[in-house]
Amino acid sequence: GHATPVLERVMPAFLKVDAGNGFAFPALDLACDALVETCAETGIAAAAVTRSHHCGQAGRHVEKLAERGVLALMFANTPQAMAPWGGSKAVFGTNPIAFAAPMDSAPPLVVDLSLSKVARGKVMAAAGKGEAIPEGWALDAEGQPTTDATAALGGTMVAMGDAKGTALALVVEVLAAGLTGACFAFEASSFFSAEGAPPGVGQLIIGFDVAKTAGNGFGDRMGLLCAAMEDQPGVRLPGARRLALRRQAAESGLQVDVAIWRAILDLTG
Amino acid sequence: GHATPVLERVMPAFLKVDAGNGFAFPALDLACDALVETCAETGIAAAAVTRSHHCGQAGRHVEKLAERGVLALMFANTPQAMAPWGGSKAVFGTNPIAFAAPMDSAPPLVVDLSLSKVARGKVMAAAGKGEAIPEGWALDAEGQPTTDATAALGGTMVAMGDAKGTALALVVEVLAAGLTGACFAFEASSFFSAEGAPPGVGQLIIGFDVAKTAGNGFGDRMGLLCAAMEDQPGVRLPGARRLALRRQAAESGLQVDVAIWRAILDLTG
Repeated sequence: GHATPVLERVMPAFLKVDAGNGFAFPALDLACDALVETCAETGIAAAAVTRSHHCGQAGRHVEKLAERGVLALMFANTPQAMAPWGGSKAVFGTNPIAFAAPMDSAPPLVVDLSLSKVARGKVMAAAGKGEAIPEGWALDAEGQPTTDATAALGGTMVAMGDAKGTALALVVEVLAAGLTGACFAFEASSFFSAEGAPPGVGQLIIGFDVAKTAGNGFGDRMGLLCAAMEDQPGVRLPGARRLALRRQAAESGLQVDVAIWRAILDLTG
Repeated sequence: GHATPVLERVMPAFLKVDAGNGFAFPALDLACDALVETCAETGIAAAAVTRSHHCGQAGRHVEKLAERGVLALMFANTPQAMAPWGGSKAVFGTNPIAFAAPMDSAPPLVVDLSLSKVARGKVMAAAGKGEAIPEGWALDAEGQPTTDATAALGGTMVAMGDAKGTALALVVEVLAAGLTGACFAFEASSFFSAEGAPPGVGQLIIGFDVAKTAGNGFGDRMGLLCAAMEDQPGVRLPGARRLALRRQAAESGLQVDVAIWRAILDLTG
């Protein structure tokens, strides 16, 4: 909690941020502030965050960049969860990819997805209730498909899109850890345990100054693309539900479970 | 065939290439040559190719960059093939994503995938033989799942990873067409027909000078990551089959169907 992130501009368009094995958030804020300034000079720039931790909701970081006129991509690796295609031992994390683009007269368009077919939390919930999971979500410790949630927890998660999604998890591993000098998923300790060394994972953020690269027509073009989606019955833009819930929370407040609220009060004194 | 691509360095790390509605290949070669030089100066750089055409095998372009020490990502949009999630009308192309990373003592690691679950050619082949297709590959014109290959050809392809892959197709549309000023998939004419306006699609290539960003340890780290995959029985690196076939063709030549060979001779005089 006391780590101070350090930023270095190693090349005109490439920034390195050492998160110092503290929380990821101050490191990502530092990286994003510098990215906005740097890509205004160079058009495109990247920030490589190393010795980092859980980045929270990846989409929120790129959304804030898009609110400042920067189209952004973010790649984050996470502790081991998925095996290479055909294998049984986890090598990759669930490795989220996030994207946000500025819009002219609407909140940024945000895509934020992890590369596992479903979140591991769903398997943990099923195991807790003694319920089966659908085939295709996970493999057991021998790399075989399983519907047994407990066996799945001892095995690996399946990537969205199977072999193709697994290949994307490899790409994220190289971008988020290889380029940044961070730990690969299979080297990282759990985010949720104080045992052993810090996870030391990485994040890579790429930003484009939209006005200086795509130019002024970009907003109109994004409007046209979104209209081509929204004009179809049954289609909603990515993030539509998130924005509606955010508006509702801003108007009516958040409902927090009493036990969680008490735990928060205990933690904060 | 006579179009000459034109490159402009609009920002220190951002290049625009107008392919002039000719073939994509000379435009991509121009973009890649300039990317190698530019990212050596800036660390990361991007080339946005507009008024372009079918990029061929996307992985080959980034592979050539990786052979020159540049870790590269490429996003390409293609004419309309996939509907937004929940919809029935195609808005996105099958939109390939390609990636290549330099290795120390091995050919570059290449990932190259289109975002449809299967290639549309497989549906065309099934329709030609009057065969059914597996459920999950395609939707009919009303947006309903179908196993009828002919109905599928009148409908849309399903993305790999379903909703998540569809969201990635949207991301590629914004990167490859929105940022480059190219036609969106739903505006682009077919690659395989001379009717109407040229397709005018786009490609975005992002390159990192590995030595100047990740530094000298990158090769060792990539070796470790690949070993963690290859050490598992049943796992092969992405591209392993492609490299084996390439070696075989270099040693023993290519087998070309007589009818195709005659067609080539006719075309080339």
